[in-house]
Amino acid sequence: MTYWCEHAVLPGGVVAGVLVEVDGERFGSVTAAAPPPDATVLRGLTVPGLANAHSHAFHRALRGRTHEGGGDFWSWREAMYAVAEALDPDTYLALARATFAEMALAGITCVGEFHYLHHGRGGTPYADPNAMGHAVAQAAREAGIRITVLDTCYLAGGFGPSGGQCDLTQPQLRFSDGDVGGWLGRVSRFDPGAGAKLGAAVHSVRAVPARDIEMVAEWAARGAVLHAHVSEQAAENAACLAAHGRTPTALLYQSGALASNFTAVHGTHLTAADIDLYGLNRATVCFCPTTERDLADGIGPASALRAAGASLSLGSDSHAVIDLFEEARGVELDERLITGRRGGHSAADLLAAATEAGHACLGWRGVGRIEAGAYADLVTISLDTPRTAGCPPTAATAVFAATAADVRHVVASGRVVVADGVHQLVPDVPAALSAAIGAVIHQ
Amino acid sequence: MTYWCEHAVLPGGVVAGVLVEVDGERFGSVTAAAPPPDATVLRGLTVPGLANAHSHAFHRALRGRTHEGGGDFWSWREAMYAVAEALDPDTYLALARATFAEMALAGITCVGEFHYLHHGRGGTPYADPNAMGHAVAQAAREAGIRITVLDTCYLAGGFGPSGGQCDLTQPQLRFSDGDVGGWLGRVSRFDPGAGAKLGAAVHSVRAVPARDIEMVAEWAARGAVLHAHVSEQAAENAACLAAHGRTPTALLYQSGALASNFTAVHGTHLTAADIDLYGLNRATVCFCPTTERDLADGIGPASALRAAGASLSLGSDSHAVIDLFEEARGVELDERLITGRRGGHSAADLLAAATEAGHACLGWRGVGRIEAGAYADLVTISLDTPRTAGCPPTAATAVFAATAADVRHVVASGRVVVADGVHQLVPDVPAALSAAIGAVIHQ
Repeated sequence: MTYWCEHAVLPGGVVAGVLVEVDGERFGSVTAAAPPPDATVLRGLTVPGLANAHSHAFHRALRGRTHEGGGDFWSWREAMYAVAEALDPDTYLALARATFAEMALAGITCVGEFHYLHHGRGGTPYADPNAMGHAVAQAAREAGIRITVLDTCYLAGGFGPSGGQCDLTQPQLRFSDGDVGGWLGRVSRFDPGAGAKLGAAVHSVRAVPARDIEMVAEWAARGAVLHAHVSEQAAENAACLAAHGRTPTALLYQSGALASNFTAVHGTHLTAADIDLYGLNRATVCFCPTTERDLADGIGPASALRAAGASLSLGSDSHAVIDLFEEARGVELDERLITGRRGGHSAADLLAAATEAGHACLGWRGVGRIEAGAYADLVTISLDTPRTAGCPPTAATAVFAATAADVRHVVASGRVVVADGVHQLVPDVPAALSAAIGAVIHQ
Repeated sequence: MTYWCEHAVLPGGVVAGVLVEVDGERFGSVTAAAPPPDATVLRGLTVPGLANAHSHAFHRALRGRTHEGGGDFWSWREAMYAVAEALDPDTYLALARATFAEMALAGITCVGEFHYLHHGRGGTPYADPNAMGHAVAQAAREAGIRITVLDTCYLAGGFGPSGGQCDLTQPQLRFSDGDVGGWLGRVSRFDPGAGAKLGAAVHSVRAVPARDIEMVAEWAARGAVLHAHVSEQAAENAACLAAHGRTPTALLYQSGALASNFTAVHGTHLTAADIDLYGLNRATVCFCPTTERDLADGIGPASALRAAGASLSLGSDSHAVIDLFEEARGVELDERLITGRRGGHSAADLLAAATEAGHACLGWRGVGRIEAGAYADLVTISLDTPRTAGCPPTAATAVFAATAADVRHVVASGRVVVADGVHQLVPDVPAALSAAIGAVIHQ
């Protein structure tokens, strides 16, 4: 296939008139040129594929249901557990497929699914112990996007009274493989299939004992990425300090988890020493600003992390919103609110967080750039919607003015997934969402 | 006209199946009923008309051009002045009409235009000294929405060295009527015409000497609303304290401005005494969260103001974004980020800020509610878009899940302005925006 982009964000900046040859899943050539007669013309501003580096697909069922009223992260979690209870491989496939299709419409070509809903009710394994993991990988394939299944180790219910961990609560039983050996055994038999990678996750220092974190990190060090929720809540830091005398980040470092394959999700409440550890180890921190606003988490130290040498990626996490442009500007705008200064992050840096850095932290290297050899992802933002009309074709327009609703055309791994705003594999995404959510939630 | 709403937010809450009879500009009756055969059916969730209580229409030309990089409010202001320089009554009409049409597509049925671009270049009055005010009122009529022209007194360039004020800079000359008598004389001859109200504004305590604020407040007390930018920047507070020994709010109070017809725009940096003054005087504070993020202003004390008895309204101000739902959730979400707590504002309260309270602070009383006798405004949010599918028909969905792109149908003052997402008076809003912006900006 041959595409001609009216304007495209290339590694060196925005170029007007870019001819893109696609060879299978990859870009063959990318050159500045006039449009040949046989090219598909992409009007507007084309950016690389967006990577949603932190997703819990099933949380999409909670949109519009949990944002109001009091409570905090912990009370919100109760509502989330109620949805988890209702899922099985079939309903999970349908809900994740619809959610990933919404992502594709928003220009997301790769998702990192932080997957811990492994077993049947009460913790009983399915006949195939990886039935739920297969469902989520299949959902991404059917929605036309790539996935890294971040298979999550979840063993305990929190820090216990005397250095141990608490037992799991009833809804958490489905998340657990019993012990870290159970997790290793199951994961070693899980092949997520075409267009999918397998990664590892430690749910959090609350949910995995320190000695088991070491085992997961060792497994991941043999070629997989490793993610963990870290310091989203100040309460986690306090409990970890009380139990271990160190911060969650320091505990992960001591357990061998902090390396260039590691991504700390949130990283909202970090010490200066924590920030240095991410930088020195060339790790990534994945910010999820719309979720962090919704759950009253706070504003993480994005500029300080970048200055220390860490990478930033972005996730829509609880899917209160699925709009990576909103996440990208959220990093900069929320930082402005507490510093009183603009410009901690350039638009190009924010777009890189949403694209190349996001792919890299999911194990997809050399992706998220429009250049020969990379996976052929193209996301075209209309510059003639009520929101974008009159805006210049720049990275700043993509990051600060565009919304998910302005994405018109999406190519992922060389395949047209969205054309003129219509998903090519899931033709009625809203109907798919309504049906999948209706099957698991009763309001 | 007769409408039947699948779901509607009425004063008592959401009702399924609401029959609405419109009689001219007003609602005749509003009743729960089955859909009669002759009614126009509005599928989705219908809310009252949204009021954008703080707008500078011409700032729309800056979208995508000023959000990146360093600088602050003061450097941003230089870019904004460059656009102001390029405007005359014709280009202002075209730009404001296109901007107001974008607002209509987003469900906004009434705008408060904080209008200070009064005169020709160098401050020379036009043949009709209210030519620019007429242009902005006409723009709203042609875009199908109501307007309150907040005719702004702007006389000085800031606080001077010894209790006086600085001279105006060159771009500010167009804003000034020379002295407060000039402002009073011009305003007394300004009739903004049908569908429009005339209100007053003091640009800020920087731009109007205290004795002149008294004169403007006296004029407004005879039946008009009065708005002012207040404490958007900490620097304004410091300068006001140095010049007058009191905060901007206290200075406005001392000048007789703080009454129930007064709206402080922003109110970001307020003291506890300032907050009490707004509450005791039943004044309104208009928050503009997306602009306050963009300009690194900070997060205002919304919950404290409400607790003290003040009203909250909302504005899109610089139009980096035109989405009143985003402004409404921004109040709550930004507050969560600094308090660590959710639920300072209910969804119903946030929707009231975007509707009834916004209209009230613009002088439109008994509006912003779907009830007999009120102006007949209906804004229907689709519940079958990728963003809203699966969400329940509640105020929380409107405030926390919907976006401007999800508005499908808009009735303003009894007239259909948007049908199936298409503006009925400005058929191609993006083209209108592009043309109007292209005429005044060269990048």
